[in-house]
Amino acid sequence: MNYSSAIDTVWVLIATGLVFFMQAGFAMVETGFTRAKNSSNIIMKNLMDFSVGSLVFWVLGFGLMFGTDTNGFIGQIAFFGDINFKALGLTIPKEAFLIFQTVFCATAATIVSGAMAERTKFLSYLIYSFVISALVYPIVGHWVWGNGWLSQLGFHDFAGSTVVHSLGGWAALMGAFIIGPRIGKYENGKSNTIKGHSIPLGALGVFILWFGWFGFNPGSTLSAMSFNDIAHIFMTTNLAGSSAAVVAMIISWVKQGKPDVGVTLNGALGGLVAITAGTDVVSSSSAAIIGIIAGFCVVYAMDFIDKVLKIDDPVGAVAVHGVCGSVGTILVGIFSLKEGLIYGYGISLLKTQIIGVFSVALWTMGLTYVLFKVIDLTIGLRVTSDEENMGLDIKEHGLESYGDFELRESYLTESY
Amino acid sequence: MNYSSAIDTVWVLIATGLVFFMQAGFAMVETGFTRAKNSSNIIMKNLMDFSVGSLVFWVLGFGLMFGTDTNGFIGQIAFFGDINFKALGLTIPKEAFLIFQTVFCATAATIVSGAMAERTKFLSYLIYSFVISALVYPIVGHWVWGNGWLSQLGFHDFAGSTVVHSLGGWAALMGAFIIGPRIGKYENGKSNTIKGHSIPLGALGVFILWFGWFGFNPGSTLSAMSFNDIAHIFMTTNLAGSSAAVVAMIISWVKQGKPDVGVTLNGALGGLVAITAGTDVVSSSSAAIIGIIAGFCVVYAMDFIDKVLKIDDPVGAVAVHGVCGSVGTILVGIFSLKEGLIYGYGISLLKTQIIGVFSVALWTMGLTYVLFKVIDLTIGLRVTSDEENMGLDIKEHGLESYGDFELRESYLTESY
Amino acid sequence: MNYSSAIDTVWVLIATGLVFFMQAGFAMVETGFTRAKNSSNIIMKNLMDFSVGSLVFWVLGFGLMFGTDTNGFIGQIAFFGDINFKALGLTIPKEAFLIFQTVFCATAATIVSGAMAERTKFLSYLIYSFVISALVYPIVGHWVWGNGWLSQLGFHDFAGSTVVHSLGGWAALMGAFIIGPRIGKYENGKSNTIKGHSIPLGALGVFILWFGWFGFNPGSTLSAMSFNDIAHIFMTTNLAGSSAAVVAMIISWVKQGKPDVGVTLNGALGGLVAITAGTDVVSSSSAAIIGIIAGFCVVYAMDFIDKVLKIDDPVGAVAVHGVCGSVGTILVGIFSLKEGLIYGYGISLLKTQIIGVFSVALWTMGLTYVLFKVIDLTIGLRVTSDEENMGLDIKEHGLESYGDFELRESYLTESY
Repeated sequence: MNYSSAIDTVWVLIATGLVFFMQAGFAMVETGFTRAKNSSNIIMKNLMDFSVGSLVFWVLGFGLMFGTDTNGFIGQIAFFGDINFKALGLTIPKEAFLIFQTVFCATAATIVSGAMAERTKFLSYLIYSFVISALVYPIVGHWVWGNGWLSQLGFHDFAGSTVVHSLGGWAALMGAFIIGPRIGKYENGKSNTIKGHSIPLGALGVFILWFGWFGFNPGSTLSAMSFNDIAHIFMTTNLAGSSAAVVAMIISWVKQGKPDVGVTLNGALGGLVAITAGTDVVSSSSAAIIGIIAGFCVVYAMDFIDKVLKIDDPVGAVAVHGVCGSVGTILVGIFSLKEGLIYGYGISLLKTQIIGVFSVALWTMGLTYVLFKVIDLTIGLRVTSDEENMGLDIKEHGLESYGDFELRESYLTESY
Repeated sequence: MNYSSAIDTVWVLIATGLVFFMQAGFAMVETGFTRAKNSSNIIMKNLMDFSVGSLVFWVLGFGLMFGTDTNGFIGQIAFFGDINFKALGLTIPKEAFLIFQTVFCATAATIVSGAMAERTKFLSYLIYSFVISALVYPIVGHWVWGNGWLSQLGFHDFAGSTVVHSLGGWAALMGAFIIGPRIGKYENGKSNTIKGHSIPLGALGVFILWFGWFGFNPGSTLSAMSFNDIAHIFMTTNLAGSSAAVVAMIISWVKQGKPDVGVTLNGALGGLVAITAGTDVVSSSSAAIIGIIAGFCVVYAMDFIDKVLKIDDPVGAVAVHGVCGSVGTILVGIFSLKEGLIYGYGISLLKTQIIGVFSVALWTMGLTYVLFKVIDLTIGLRVTSDEENMGLDIKEHGLESYGDFELRESYLTESY
Repeated sequence: MNYSSAIDTVWVLIATGLVFFMQAGFAMVETGFTRAKNSSNIIMKNLMDFSVGSLVFWVLGFGLMFGTDTNGFIGQIAFFGDINFKALGLTIPKEAFLIFQTVFCATAATIVSGAMAERTKFLSYLIYSFVISALVYPIVGHWVWGNGWLSQLGFHDFAGSTVVHSLGGWAALMGAFIIGPRIGKYENGKSNTIKGHSIPLGALGVFILWFGWFGFNPGSTLSAMSFNDIAHIFMTTNLAGSSAAVVAMIISWVKQGKPDVGVTLNGALGGLVAITAGTDVVSSSSAAIIGIIAGFCVVYAMDFIDKVLKIDDPVGAVAVHGVCGSVGTILVGIFSLKEGLIYGYGISLLKTQIIGVFSVALWTMGLTYVLFKVIDLTIGLRVTSDEENMGLDIKEHGLESYGDFELRESYLTESY
């Protein structure tokens, strides 16, 4: 009996389920931290990210990511997962690997919906979603996990701080930049806070995401036989999330005189994003330190993007996924037990990590800049200001998300 | 060491946990898509479905379903699971099998609460819930999974498109038919839409259900050693849900000019229901096609039930579970890689599938028609119109679900 | 290949994920059953319980709990988990055991936030949270699970009815007692009901907790090779939760004329808490009986605490966790298949169970009484009445949890 394959497959598929469930987490975070009038619209975007992404990645993306390498840049046009799977040398069936990779792809895609929330045309969003799952993500995925050039360089991104999270974050940055801020967000050079409509739902989303991360990171071993690694990854993942949440809370407390809820929740997510690259190769203490650094990054990156760049990212997706993902990946070069700077292995890995992070950032920002610009110039990226004021639920979907509730007067007449 | 049993048991029990969690999904879908004034009532019905069902199925149902067969129709009166378990030839302990079957039974029972929402007496619902878990479901379960006559015929319903979902759906149809529409639903021959009170909660429910389906379908292998099957089932389950969601959205967009949120969410569920019967024996491409067909079925069946039959099913449970469950089961006769029509195996399986689907539909509708009629004529099925207008939360349970919130004026005085 | 360790580790870590997810359940239960104006504050407390607890238990608590025993009372000061792990004789890696124990510790800590909700200073709560995770819990844990004196006596608390739940419950009792009731709770000797703001979220929390219990109890086998035990634990856990929910509902129906939603939901939790001690050694029928007893205990203990003791516990945490945890632990002495009174083994185990329950209660109440008193006399335990009336969200965190919604007039001016 093939016990090893059975255990490995069960393990990877349970992790797949957990990573799928992160879609619910993203949906709750993004809807909770934005306004009631756009709730259903956000949820539709999340659901379609996943549904469209599942189909597109199966038809095309998986082949581009894991098919036979061409010049280190891209895999094959191999429809419906028809690749040379044996070459990957895994113990699990191809379909287990394919579905596991599918839910990762969908995670990258869904990060963008939060940053572009409350003003993006639904159809335009669908087109973006299609392209990121078909092309943008699979190509980067090939570089790092599909035996592409970054993988050949020795770049270490265990579960996707860069491949999944920073890619999603940089695409989010381009989207939020090109579409511009929500009405009322910036007035007379001042940045107004536009309040979320349900902090409990947003917080539930964060708990769901943390739960899902216990599939995301340890599942990336792709094998249960490496059970010592899995246990270590559970520890480092949890410690980084915890220390980042505590640190982000403390900073907000010191800065604003009160512990900020949104910042603390985003702090937890930033820590989880940051540890994802090195979760398997850093010590528990280093994981806690990486979390602390991520806690700082979340707070100051959110401020910088909001107040200096004046880019309106309603949920802080760029800070959490783009910045913490990149920083966390670079820190592997310092903290890796096997190749890190502080363990006397020199700056070789650090250099590779920096090259990888910047390459992925440039690729993603370049491609998505063009993508969003083309959409904007053709069918348009943004709803009309009338639609935005009334809310995307009514205008794009013909319903109210909270039909029984009285909403505040400001709700439909003002924007904040 | 008995590795095989250990892996199998762990796998089946984790799947059990996931299927249990679907109860939360049903609760959120059903409460989200109905009015705030009936929220707690729905949740109580869901909780009691599961609690009463767990006890009843353990005491009586399990024996009727899996006890020694009598004439292909029914198992034994074997209280507390005291059956000849060895005869089933499984590698997992009896209690693992019993608890796995328990959560399936509870899934069938809970489907009905949505279709009868906002007007059913709580006590009457409890009686229904008792009978379906004790008798209606276990007998059908025996036919298909307990070595009964449909199983002997070669009927293929891997994880319960028919046994669980269509059974729940047809019971829901009878319940909604006999109890009649909610006040204000049909006026002057026109069907009014009665809005749900929280689309985000409803959507969260759909995500939870999808997550739970990764236990429902692959867990039905009852063994982790068939890991290739498990991986394939993950793929087909996910593809059918995805394609159905996309197709339902597109149809609603074309029909109404806007992508409808409720239809899209129900589309996803319809695809998941439809694939459940053949998830192990159809190809990935066929799974996507079955999803597409389910997407059509959800939209047009909801319309037909609402506008032609004029049966008021607040959450679309009959279309999702009854129609898609039946259609999906029949499609196994066409798409099965081992016996399907399109692979040249003739119409033998197709005929069996049709016989099975209609037998279960007739049995369920007949029995639940009598059941609901008897309840209606004795203690009464429906609350008074005063109770219905005020809301079942206040009248049946003495509380408001959202004590701090201002509700719209229409909330307590009108019905829609 | 070490199959056994692989399966065991995967099993324990999946259980860890499920127990982690219980944090989301506690957050939803506690926020749902209290007022909208304190939602974010509760969630922050839950998030920090877990984050601070994860760090503290790793740094200090784990060593005190599982380090080499000193006089049966306490383990070692062994920072960062640096204990003699081999002595424990487990098949899983140390880090798997450490993270599993971490999520248990966080469960004990988080129980208190509900009982002290809507009036506790955030900073004071953080201090409490630190101390319970660093000292109070690890020492009791050492007594029972770390080869301490209760373990040597033969005390049986399989998964923590006493170690986790009653400890949390008694700490909650002391906290709620010392901080005093919420403004408006008791007037002219009468106990007013202060309504929760979202029963659906509270109910979702209960479903999540039940789901998590399928990790909490069966995961405590610490091995998948004992698969018969795991299956049995699933059964007994589920039956106790179910029967307790049904019984609590019936009692409330008889007492108040209506089935009470909050009581029923707490009934389910009480049953789950009560079975946790003996889930591995009682029969299924005994589990159902333990659930029935827990159903009674929840109802009458809530009444007693609220109306006789006049201690304001907004969510019933003391009744659910303290009382049911203790009663369930004692009942092991009666129902244990291996040593229980009704199976003719005399009162030896029963006596030990009673000694254990009372020792833990006294220790916890004594220590937390001092802790809360010291906090109260130094930095203060309670917010000002102005802060309490306005809500802790605005005053402690500077935000509203439901920015878009109109809240009832009573919301900010009155207290109930």
